[in-house]
Amino acid sequence: MQQKAFHIPVLAIVGVGLIGGSLAAALKQAQVAGRVLGVGRKGQTLKEALQLGLIDEVASPEQAAALADVIVLATPISAITTVLQQMKPHLRAHTVLTDVGSTKKEVVRQARTALGATFKRFVPGHPIAGAEKAGPAAASADLFRRRNVILTPVHDTSAVAQKTVLSMWSACDARVLTMSPATHDEVLASVSHVPHFLSSVYMWQVASADDADVRLRLAGTGFRDFTRIAAGSAEVWRDIFLSNKEAVLQELAQVQKAFKQAEQALQNNDEQALFEFLEKAALARRLWVSRSGYRE
Amino acid sequence: MQQKAFHIPVLAIVGVGLIGGSLAAALKQAQVAGRVLGVGRKGQTLKEALQLGLIDEVASPEQAAALADVIVLATPISAITTVLQQMKPHLRAHTVLTDVGSTKKEVVRQARTALGATFKRFVPGHPIAGAEKAGPAAASADLFRRRNVILTPVHDTSAVAQKTVLSMWSACDARVLTMSPATHDEVLASVSHVPHFLSSVYMWQVASADDADVRLRLAGTGFRDFTRIAAGSAEVWRDIFLSNKEAVLQELAQVQKAFKQAEQALQNNDEQALFEFLEKAALARRLWVSRSGYRE
Repeated sequence: MQQKAFHIPVLAIVGVGLIGGSLAAALKQAQVAGRVLGVGRKGQTLKEALQLGLIDEVASPEQAAALADVIVLATPISAITTVLQQMKPHLRAHTVLTDVGSTKKEVVRQARTALGATFKRFVPGHPIAGAEKAGPAAASADLFRRRNVILTPVHDTSAVAQKTVLSMWSACDARVLTMSPATHDEVLASVSHVPHFLSSVYMWQVASADDADVRLRLAGTGFRDFTRIAAGSAEVWRDIFLSNKEAVLQELAQVQKAFKQAEQALQNNDEQALFEFLEKAALARRLWVSRSGYRE
Repeated sequence: MQQKAFHIPVLAIVGVGLIGGSLAAALKQAQVAGRVLGVGRKGQTLKEALQLGLIDEVASPEQAAALADVIVLATPISAITTVLQQMKPHLRAHTVLTDVGSTKKEVVRQARTALGATFKRFVPGHPIAGAEKAGPAAASADLFRRRNVILTPVHDTSAVAQKTVLSMWSACDARVLTMSPATHDEVLASVSHVPHFLSSVYMWQVASADDADVRLRLAGTGFRDFTRIAAGSAEVWRDIFLSNKEAVLQELAQVQKAFKQAEQALQNNDEQALFEFLEKAALARRLWVSRSGYRE
């Protein structure tokens, strides 16, 4: 039972919001993490995480680097370079680093530049879990249970570091998959970034209309579901779009093509074409939910 | 307490799916409906509605017309003309008719043509309630509680008929609003039809990709919420889009403009513009949910 022996004496979480806080909670619950250090820019968030028992103490990036066996970056992507630069001179020889960022090519680029030779101990990762809620108060030890976590190691990533990060996520009861940073970014552009872009554009358009009040008063449950993701952090999503720009723009162009085709069918009163695209979408969605394990 | 005296001795529901079945259940629970007749094309659905106690007996359109005090059309919009033509020669002198269709200009046009002089007793209506589930088994007496129901009477709609339909929905604890068919169709194009169109186009595009399998495997809760409405009935939504084509195309063009603007901001790495549109969307969505009374 090798899994049981896995232990992280000192774990540092940089950014103790929903994801970082939930990871801390899950690893504490699994008795995998010894001491948990919380690092962050916002005093209030760190205080909340302390009070909730998600972390044991607050540390600076430098202190965390000098103490931690595993460091998890759970900050917006735009903060990664700065944190790694602050940490680098203080890192221990065996420390493993990982992140939870939603795009991976850009994170690999930043980490490689900031860490130099130490980059081999950085294992890029992305848990496919989250919620429209943010902050440590929303954290849950169960957030990653039966959820996918994607690791995107590259040719020079240390096998030992990779195994540590895999064990860490397995201890949270997550399903760990491995793929290249490029594949990750293309797939996530399609199933995560583009929906967020469309939902936000749509919400922005409705809220900007002259008669937004009457529109929003008559919006129902379909509107609620379709726009839920648009409530997410503007800072986080700006970073995601910019750091995965190429794949997002490429995928948006594909959606645009489908959009034009469906719009044309409507314009032409093409009942058959309209029915077929709606039916294909409905069947695919119903199949997906039955297989996904998500509850509606 | 005028509301308490309101009673429908014989109610006919044409189409005993989610909406029709829920209305029957709500009116029975409120003790407003006496005998409830179910009319429909599908024997299985009628049988299910009978077994669930939503309706008391099955009737043909002609029988229902000859017996009912209030007739509610809860069919896809494309079936309305046929049903009204079948019913017209048999209608009683005082019978009030209404519908629950998602678009109102087209329903008014069809009902006026099919009913002739009797059109004055037809009160166009639309409850803003629903779910991705369909069929009588999904029906609930609470579906319309604190939900908006829009009535779109026109210049020749009878005030008495209008009052009857208003009382019927009030008995379901719904909030009844009145507006013109054109205003209804424009507002609903924006907050209901366009989201459905976008969600379905997107789902169709993802499901049609060569690597759909890996994409769908990595789709998470954001994808789940964004695509939930795409699981809806292709027949119902084809009818909605075609019957509200003008307003839907106009609104899609507006969304398209917003889309191009946001896409351009990303293309230009315009951090400020990206943040502003995402932040405006996020704030509007958070405000909306706090005011809407919907649970997340």
